[in-house]
Parts: sequence; structure tokens; C-alpha cells
Amino acid sequence: VIIVMQEGATEEQIQEVIDRLVNLNFSVHRSTGVVHTLLGGIGPAETVDPEEFKIMDGVKDCYRIISPYKLASRTFRPQGTVVQAGGAGIGGAAIQVIAGPSHVESREQIFRAAEIVSASGARFLRGSAFQSSGVSSVFPGLGEQGLLWIKEAASQHGLAVVCDVPELANLTLVQKYADMLLLGSANMQNQALLRAAAATGLPIVLKRSVAATLEDLLLSADLLLSQGNYNVALCERGIRTFETNTRFTLDLGAVPGVKRLSHLPILVDPCHGTGRRDMVAPMARAAVAAGADGLLLEVHPTPDRAQVEGAQSLKPEQFAELMGQLRLIAEAAGRTL
Amino acid sequence: VIIVMQEGATEEQIQEVIDRLVNLNFSVHRSTGVVHTLLGGIGPAETVDPEEFKIMDGVKDCYRIISPYKLASRTFRPQGTVVQAGGAGIGGAAIQVIAGPSHVESREQIFRAAEIVSASGARFLRGSAFQSSGVSSVFPGLGEQGLLWIKEAASQHGLAVVCDVPELANLTLVQKYADMLLLGSANMQNQALLRAAAATGLPIVLKRSVAATLEDLLLSADLLLSQGNYNVALCERGIRTFETNTRFTLDLGAVPGVKRLSHLPILVDPCHGTGRRDMVAPMARAAVAAGADGLLLEVHPTPDRAQVEGAQSLKPEQFAELMGQLRLIAEAAGRTL
Amino acid sequence: VIIVMQEGATEEQIQEVIDRLVNLNFSVHRSTGVVHTLLGGIGPAETVDPEEFKIMDGVKDCYRIISPYKLASRTFRPQGTVVQAGGAGIGGAAIQVIAGPSHVESREQIFRAAEIVSASGARFLRGSAFQSSGVSSVFPGLGEQGLLWIKEAASQHGLAVVCDVPELANLTLVQKYADMLLLGSANMQNQALLRAAAATGLPIVLKRSVAATLEDLLLSADLLLSQGNYNVALCERGIRTFETNTRFTLDLGAVPGVKRLSHLPILVDPCHGTGRRDMVAPMARAAVAAGADGLLLEVHPTPDRAQVEGAQSLKPEQFAELMGQLRLIAEAAGRTL
Amino acid sequence: VIIVMQEGATEEQIQEVIDRLVNLNFSVHRSTGVVHTLLGGIGPAETVDPEEFKIMDGVKDCYRIISPYKLASRTFRPQGTVVQAGGAGIGGAAIQVIAGPSHVESREQIFRAAEIVSASGARFLRGSAFQSSGVSSVFPGLGEQGLLWIKEAASQHGLAVVCDVPELANLTLVQKYADMLLLGSANMQNQALLRAAAATGLPIVLKRSVAATLEDLLLSADLLLSQGNYNVALCERGIRTFETNTRFTLDLGAVPGVKRLSHLPILVDPCHGTGRRDMVAPMARAAVAAGADGLLLEVHPTPDRAQVEGAQSLKPEQFAELMGQLRLIAEAAGRTL
Repeated sequence: VIIVMQEGATEEQIQEVIDRLVNLNFSVHRSTGVVHTLLGGIGPAETVDPEEFKIMDGVKDCYRIISPYKLASRTFRPQGTVVQAGGAGIGGAAIQVIAGPSHVESREQIFRAAEIVSASGARFLRGSAFQSSGVSSVFPGLGEQGLLWIKEAASQHGLAVVCDVPELANLTLVQKYADMLLLGSANMQNQALLRAAAATGLPIVLKRSVAATLEDLLLSADLLLSQGNYNVALCERGIRTFETNTRFTLDLGAVPGVKRLSHLPILVDPCHGTGRRDMVAPMARAAVAAGADGLLLEVHPTPDRAQVEGAQSLKPEQFAELMGQLRLIAEAAGRTL
Repeated sequence: VIIVMQEGATEEQIQEVIDRLVNLNFSVHRSTGVVHTLLGGIGPAETVDPEEFKIMDGVKDCYRIISPYKLASRTFRPQGTVVQAGGAGIGGAAIQVIAGPSHVESREQIFRAAEIVSASGARFLRGSAFQSSGVSSVFPGLGEQGLLWIKEAASQHGLAVVCDVPELANLTLVQKYADMLLLGSANMQNQALLRAAAATGLPIVLKRSVAATLEDLLLSADLLLSQGNYNVALCERGIRTFETNTRFTLDLGAVPGVKRLSHLPILVDPCHGTGRRDMVAPMARAAVAAGADGLLLEVHPTPDRAQVEGAQSLKPEQFAELMGQLRLIAEAAGRTL
Repeated sequence: VIIVMQEGATEEQIQEVIDRLVNLNFSVHRSTGVVHTLLGGIGPAETVDPEEFKIMDGVKDCYRIISPYKLASRTFRPQGTVVQAGGAGIGGAAIQVIAGPSHVESREQIFRAAEIVSASGARFLRGSAFQSSGVSSVFPGLGEQGLLWIKEAASQHGLAVVCDVPELANLTLVQKYADMLLLGSANMQNQALLRAAAATGLPIVLKRSVAATLEDLLLSADLLLSQGNYNVALCERGIRTFETNTRFTLDLGAVPGVKRLSHLPILVDPCHGTGRRDMVAPMARAAVAAGADGLLLEVHPTPDRAQVEGAQSLKPEQFAELMGQLRLIAEAAGRTL
Repeated sequence: VIIVMQEGATEEQIQEVIDRLVNLNFSVHRSTGVVHTLLGGIGPAETVDPEEFKIMDGVKDCYRIISPYKLASRTFRPQGTVVQAGGAGIGGAAIQVIAGPSHVESREQIFRAAEIVSASGARFLRGSAFQSSGVSSVFPGLGEQGLLWIKEAASQHGLAVVCDVPELANLTLVQKYADMLLLGSANMQNQALLRAAAATGLPIVLKRSVAATLEDLLLSADLLLSQGNYNVALCERGIRTFETNTRFTLDLGAVPGVKRLSHLPILVDPCHGTGRRDMVAPMARAAVAAGADGLLLEVHPTPDRAQVEGAQSLKPEQFAELMGQLRLIAEAAGRTL
């Protein structure tokens, strides 16, 4: 940590900061400048809350030099990570598309969805079997029956299964059927769920919370990695801003941002990020052009009759058309799809 | 719902919207204006997602006339609600202060805290016994031992116990010892926890999420009330904005806002809302002057040695001084403390 | 306007709203529902502030059905507008790139820039001759000398000149030399400047303010159009959010958003939108993939020695490489560049 | 400045940063740590854009130790500033209220307003004579006639005149009649207007922009002070956030925030900050309790017939009642009104 004392800080104030650093097992280097005295502390910086120093008398500012996240930082693995999931790599040259309905609603629906997804060339089938987070969600989900059906449908078409884990209590069932776990925005900072999900050893998609900075997201990823599970892909899905034209503001700057700060692959979910079916295709194309390693897309055989999130689910023909467009964009961006 | 068709919407587009409304069991009233055709639908509006209509061809906008929340709305109980908790009323003339450390750390600490809180005239002692939500929280909490100690400390000073429930798994223990439950921001939309907490019959403090509008907050409150538990107090604790001077931006406009929209009492937590001990007193005074029904305050016998949230915890003498100031402000605002 | 009365609004309150509407020359249609009474008012809605009704006793909500902007709305010209500027069309099949340094700094610099821009195939040269808005801007600009040089440099390479008008006082000079005016974010709501700029008859790029919703932006565009100048292109350049990874958050959702709401072309400025040279290329590609009609790019012969905005200016070789990438993306998106 | 090199930065990268610092006339101190190399640069830090270093290869972060504002910082005048305006002090023990209509609309209206303001004990009369900033403002203002009337009305009641300067072109007239200038949010970063306003020597109220951090606000204040005019009071009036319950979110944390960072007095405008008459009183009381040095209030003899901002203007009787409440809160906060 570096602590900048205010102009005119007293010797007593400086000494108090030094004492505190020493008590926390830091070795202190003092540098007396013309205007500001600086104190550099070398020690267990990750356990220190800079706020604690900022409110001390005579302190102007406090910077933590060391990233609060380590394992997730780009420096840890400069070459980047290719997540292994369902026999495919996420983060390599190939862009991966995870598609399907928000929820498994019936055997017929998920089989039909699997067919649509598979026909487009995508390799991952999504579909939740449990009630979504959020007080306004009403569809309870089909539970284990839903998991059985999605697994069956996926197998029939050679797809991998990606399932949501809205609560810790759902994990045991989900891990029996899923090839990859999806941790939603509402759970980005749910420490208990993160630890348990990482411990399954399954690859994980970690979605950014609508109020999280990239640093917050990477801190959560760090927790997963610290459990020994490095098969983690991040996912941007829109943040809360003052703009009301869309439900959230999709922050595509997060794509090059994560690439710079971290070695983990980054996906984009343009359906939750916009909440409107008619904006999904342009934002999906933009995500790929920005360098995203993959997409989460909602496609439903009959979105108008969907139980959940129909307004943001693509129709089968829209999805097929979009996949064609994405293929061209991917090539233009030097990748494959 | 009212659906406004675009200028120049075709008869076919209008018919499609009408058909959809009818299918959803709405009775439809059509009003053809000079510029826009309006469709009014009377029916099960609460189950309809306005987005579904907004993306239909020819539709300009869709308004849901009925509030998405009902039991929590002011109209439901125009006279306002006084929450009964620990023998005191929250929402009446008396302003209630819930104070204590973020976490129970030791028997001595919580007994000392109880003494400080009681001496100031406050009637509620807070203190968590479990690890906080959030990936950066490290202190695991003392578990049942902590609950035992806070209960004992509170009893000795005639205080009521307010405890955090960071996870559903903690509820069974917490409800054995607490007089009032505290549901944190991270859990504001955790449907399973909300239902279970309401079912205990204990009074509840529901904190606003940092990304929630007042409508979101009232929707969550509605879920608690719909379980038959009307002893619910809301709590503003800061929202995420672009300002970095404080960790969050305390939205005191939520105080008159909630009073207008809802009959439930509204508390303010200036400690989490600012993250800085030196801003707690002015914001606490402001909250009371704005009409808040109470405060959540963190006070610690020795904040510099606190395991959690030390930077935002008041020192005992600061707390005593603040309580004196608040008494004067409360009187000036026509209330008591 | 539609006014929704609260549940239980009194007959007196309803009458007061009706009286007010009538006084404002609205004809009123009353519809008494089971729960809410609705009042529909037909009249001069654009002059009414819905807030005035929202604060009346017994009123629950007030919606203005008519868009506050008209000339800028998609309905006004469903087929879209192709802005004619400098002999090229903005908003047609061809994507236009407006490139050059933030400011004209010397004859050599702007001639070198013109060469770089022209070599890449772009047709518009940008470069300001006046001090930028904002208190931290220090470079005063070269004034008329700068305008002369940029005009000369552009002519030599067959480029059109796009110049910033930071203040009304600069307009007389700028319009002598520029082929297209650039109105910056800080001036998006500067009514006097907007009127005067429109009156020149020159085509205009109108940048979105960092705190403006799309509706705000279209209201400003409406003012330009109402002066009889329809050669207006809009430009997204980042909004203020809580994310601190970049200076602003580039809201690419504004691209399909503007396309849906308006007939005007939409450009994207990924340099101001991110503030970091290393993020310009991915975000520029994303903008084109999302359907943007053009880009504003900062390129400088020697950005490390730039007087203004060096950190967000591309190096010549980066710009050339990006133009190549954009060409591929444009084709993949069914357009040309 | 302090530059933190990335873990594993090469010697070459480090040397390039050192060279750049030296070229900018910094003397460099290098400190090689276990993980990160740190470079401390002493020199003309205020002219350096940290972004320029952040994007250099091998650089992890760059901090500017010196505040970007100096004259406005608390260290410059630890004892605080009492602004002298219209014979009264702003920033001393007495809380000052600046009240009146948004705009002068007629002789009768402003005389009636002056009477109301004076009767309440306030000492400053506000009222604009020119069209407000913002494209949706339609009332053109009465120009010099309005200034004459407000001056006359104020004189009759011994009040000081506070007038808005929406454009540089209005300054010459305004300074002939006003005792204090009001620079609105839209102009917070208008360098030309700030310089000219400061040069009049008149005391100034500088309003925070809806997208400005406190640091941005203090940078603008610094520009005023650097012109030799120290009679500057700041004003919080709401920022843009995701909350739609009010037009803006009044950030009362700015009150203790400014007190900590700066020696300048801080006022609050709860009318623009909320946009709703019914929220003005609670937020005004909260502002005083938080330590604000004064308030800007809109009061109109007949707000329902106001040409501008009627919805947020207090009725005469509401204003009188509020002034009584504020007197009690001020006393409770150890101040007078």
C-alpha cells in the first residue's frame, strides 16, 4: 500500500499511520516530499481495507498497489485460458454459442430447442430447471424432470448441457446432469455457492452482477480459481445505468477490458443485456466483433408462448439467421464459429 | 394495461395486439385517436410483462396501470404501518435506533456494545453471527455462540436483538435468538429466503439492493407481506452511482419516496451508505430530518480493532454524541427518540 | 395524456384534474374502471409537463402518449435519412469514417493527418481549431489559422472538413471552412448554439451528452430539424456509469435503439467513449457490427506528442490496420466502407 | 505521480516510462519491490494525464498524488471560507436561504415573491430573466425588464438579488443588476463563462452538473478561484442515477464530502434535485441537518400558473411552513437561520 499524507500533516499523524502499518506486519518506507509525505507499506496488503487508512487524520489517500485479485489477473497466465467444457474449448480461436430456452418447459419444447441449436452448429444447450432468482419470477421450473429432459435432448444432438444454479440447494441435482454450470448475476457474490460450484470440478460460466465493476467480477472469479477450478468463463450481461431505453446497458467495453485485466475467456449475453428480442442480433454481432469468446443466447421454439423471458428470446428463424451473420463477423474478426 | 399503437400502425398490427390481449383473458377497449390508436386491456395485468407488448410490430409503448406491488402500496393502508418489534413500534412518533457492531466478535465486545447502546437510549442491539454476503468478506462469524452472547447481552440491558440472515441455511438458528430479522441488500430479491423469513412471523428489516429502484424494493416487500407478515420495515443503504467520493450514494430521497408510495416504515443505514465513519453523523441527522422512522448504526467498542467494517463503525463517544444530536433533530422534526 | 387516478381517489380530486386539463385546452375522456379512474386528455400535449399532474392530489401517474420529439422520430420518415455531407452520404449502404486529430496543432501535423486519413479510404477529416469545452482543457487551439490549414490539407486529398464548434462565438469562423459541423456532448442541450448551427444549413453531427437518455438526444435533434435542417447525424460517445475501468461506458445499445426510434443516422466515437487507445479498435469493430452508420476516430501522426487527447488517439499504423478490419466487418454486416 | 509497473514488466518497458517522465521534466525515483517496480515522479504533475501512462506497455496503474484542484482544496484554507454576498455571509453560523421563482414573469409576480421571501426572514431573492439552458425550455424570459423588476422588488424588501446566467451573452446585463451570480449545472464546465463570471468580481453560486463527481465540481471551482474571485459557494442539485422515482437523485453526501475536501461553502437545491414540490420540504430539512450552509428554493405566488418549473415550486404557505421547520432544524444543528 501507498499512503499519501495531506499537505501539512503533523509528525504525530504520520507516526500514527506508521504505527498502524507496523502493527499490521508491514515494513514501512517513508519518503518526505516537498508537498506530501508518502508512506509505502510492504506486507499483507490483501487483508487491508484502504478505507481504514483513508479516514485516519492527516491522510489524503491510500492506494493498494497489488491487485485485490491475483489468480484471475492477466499476469498470472499471460497466454490466456481456454476453458474445457463439453468437449469444446472456450477462449480459443472458435467462438462458442450457448443457446436454448430460458427454462425447460416441456419435453417437446426442449427437444425442439435442441434440434434448432444443433442445426445452427452451436455446441451448447442451455435451459434452467429451477425458479429464477428475483421476486418477480413465477415459473417454478420442472426440477429433476427438466434436467433429465435437457440431458436427453442434448445427448440426442451431441450437445453439452449448461444449467443455471439459482440456489445452493439446487447444486446437487444440477451437477448430476449438467456439463457446465451457469452462475447468475444475483449470485455473483454468493460466496457459499461459488465455493460449492467450484468444488464440483465442472466448468463454470460466471455472470457479472448488474451493479458490479470489472474488478468486482474478477474478485468473484478469483474465489472460484482459488478452489482449484480454472475452468471459468466470465459473462457480461448488462449493468444498471440511467438509460431506460433498454432494461440494462450492455457494457461491451467489458470485453476488451476483461481481456486486458484477466486471462479468463469472456462471453456476452445480449438477451438479458437488452431485454428486447429486436436488439439481440445487433448486440450479438457487436459482441463478437469486440472480441468476445462466445455468446449466451435465448432461443425458444415459440417465444410468444414462453413461460419465462419470452420478450427477449429469439424465434427459431431469427436464431438461424443470426448464426449465419455471426459466422461472417467471426471470420472478419479472424475467428471461427 | 394501456397499449399505444404507433402513428400509422396497420389494422393488422392492431388486430394482432387485440388477439393477444384476448388470449390472455383481457377484455379490450379500443380508442382510435387522431394520431394514435389506444388499446385498454382490463384483466390479469400483474401476470403480464409489458416488454412482451412493446416489441410487437406497430406498438409504440405499453403501460401497466396497476402497480406491480399491491399490499405494500400506500393505498392499501393509507394510515401507515407501525411495525411491532421487541416491544417497540417502528413507524410511530418515536424514531428507533438499531445499533451495535457489524459482527459479534467476542463475549466482551458484544456486552460492551450492549452497554453503549443501552446507555444512549436506543432499544435495539444489532450484531451478526455469520459470514457476510460478498466475496471479500473473510470473518466467518461466531455462529450459535455469537447468537447466545448477543441474546444474553441484550437481555441484560433490556434490548431487542436484530440479526442478519446472510443465507437461508442460517435462518433456523437466527430465529431462535433474534427479535427481528435483518435481510441484507444482496438478498433483497432472494425469493426463497424472503418467503422463509416471512414465515417465521418475526418482524423484518428489508434492505434495498444497491441496484434496486424503489419499485423493486416495494416488489420485494410485497412478497413478504403476501406471506401474511406485515411487520416489515424497509431500509435505504446507498445505491451504485458514478460518484466515487463514497462507496455508495445514500439516496435520502427514498425516505419521502417510500412514504408516498408505501405504508411501510423506512429506516436508513448511513454506515453502509457512506462507508466512512466521518460521514455517518451528518447523514444520520439528515435521515431523521427527512422523516426516516429509524436508523441502523454500527458502533463498536474499539473500531480500530474491529474484524469487519471498522472504517464505517462509530466510536463509543461518537455514537453518544450523535444520539444527543439526533434527539434534537427528532424534536425539531416533531418526533421523539 | 393519460392520467391514472389512485385507487380511492375522491370525486373532488378527479374533478380538479379534469378542470386543469380543460383549462389547458384539452378535451377530456373519462373512463371509470374497477380499480382506477382514467382520464384521457386530447390537446396540446407537447406543452404539458407530466410532473405537474403527477403531484396533484389523488393522481397515481401521468403518461404522455405523444413522443416529445416528432420530426426526429422514425414514424416521421420510416425509410430513414441519408445525410448529405461533403459529397458523401451518411446513413446509406456505405459506412463513413470521420478521422483526424483532436486538434489542429501545426500545418505539418494536419497535412500528415490528411494523408493518413486519405490513404485509408476515409472521406472526412476532423480537427478542432478552438479550445475544447471542459475546465481541464488547456490547449487554446489555433483559431482561423488552424481552420485554413485543415481546409487546405483536406482539399489536397479530396477530403471533407468536419470541425468542432465548442462555443457559439466560434460558429462564424467555423462555417467559413467546414463542410460539416460537430456539436459536442457539452453542447447537446445548448439551445442557442443548436439553433444557430442548424441555421447555417451545413450538415451536423450531434453528440450525445454523457448524462442524456436517447429521448434527450432525440429532443435535441428535433430542435435542429425544426429549423429546417435535416442533415443531422447523431453520435454515441459514452455515458457516465459506475464502472471506472473506462472513462465512460460506450452504450452500443444506442445504435439499434436510435435505429428503432429515429430515422437519423447514428455514428459512434469509440475514442472519447473509452479514453484508451487500446480499446478503440475492438469498440470500433463492435459499433460497425451493431449497425452504426459511421465512426468518429482520432488518429494523430505522433500521439505521444499530441497536445490534446493523446491517450485516446490511434497511431497511424493502428488506424490503417483498423480500417482494414472495419472493411471486413462492414462486408460481413452487408455494408461497404 | 506514482507509476506501478506490472508484475514481470521488462527492463525495457521500465526504461521507456522513465524516459517519458524525464522528457516531461520529472525527476524520477525508482523502487524495485518483490512484485512490482514503482516509479515516483516529482515534477509538473498537474499537466500530466495519468491515462497517458496507464496505456504504456508494462504499466499497471498510475496515480497522481497531487490533487488536480488546489485553491479549492480544504488544505488551502483549513479554517473555511465565508462568502460575502449582499451584505450577508454564506458559510458562517447563519444558514442562508436563496428563494424566489424560477423566472421573473411579471412585475406583480416578482414583487409578490419578494414579499413572501422577505416575510420568511430569508435575505436573497432569486429569479431568472433569460431562457433556461436545455432544449425543452420554452419561456424566453423578460430580459432586462425582468432584471429591473427583480432589482426593484428586492430593494423594496432589503433583499439581495441572485440571477442565473444561462449564456455568456447574458452576463453584461445580469452583472448590472445582480448581487450574486448563479451558474447552472449545464455551465459547470463552460470555461469561457466561468472566467468571465469570476472576472466580474461578484460572488458566485456554482451548481454541480448532473454527471459531475465532486472532484469535477472542485476543478471548476478552482478555475473561478484562480481568477482571483474567492467568493464562491457550491451547490448540490441532484445527479443522474438509475432511480426514476425522482428526476435526479439528490446526493446529500456531497455536503459532508465538500466540507472534507474543500473550504468553500456548500448549498443544496432540493427543488431541481427532486423535481417534485412534495419532496422539497423533507430534503431541505435533511440538507440543513447534514450541514449545508444554505438552500436554493423555488417559491412562486401561484405555482399552478407558473411559466417554468411549477411542479417543483413551493406555494407561499408551504414555503412559510418550511422556513419555520428549517429554523428548528438549524438550531438543533447548532446554527441559525
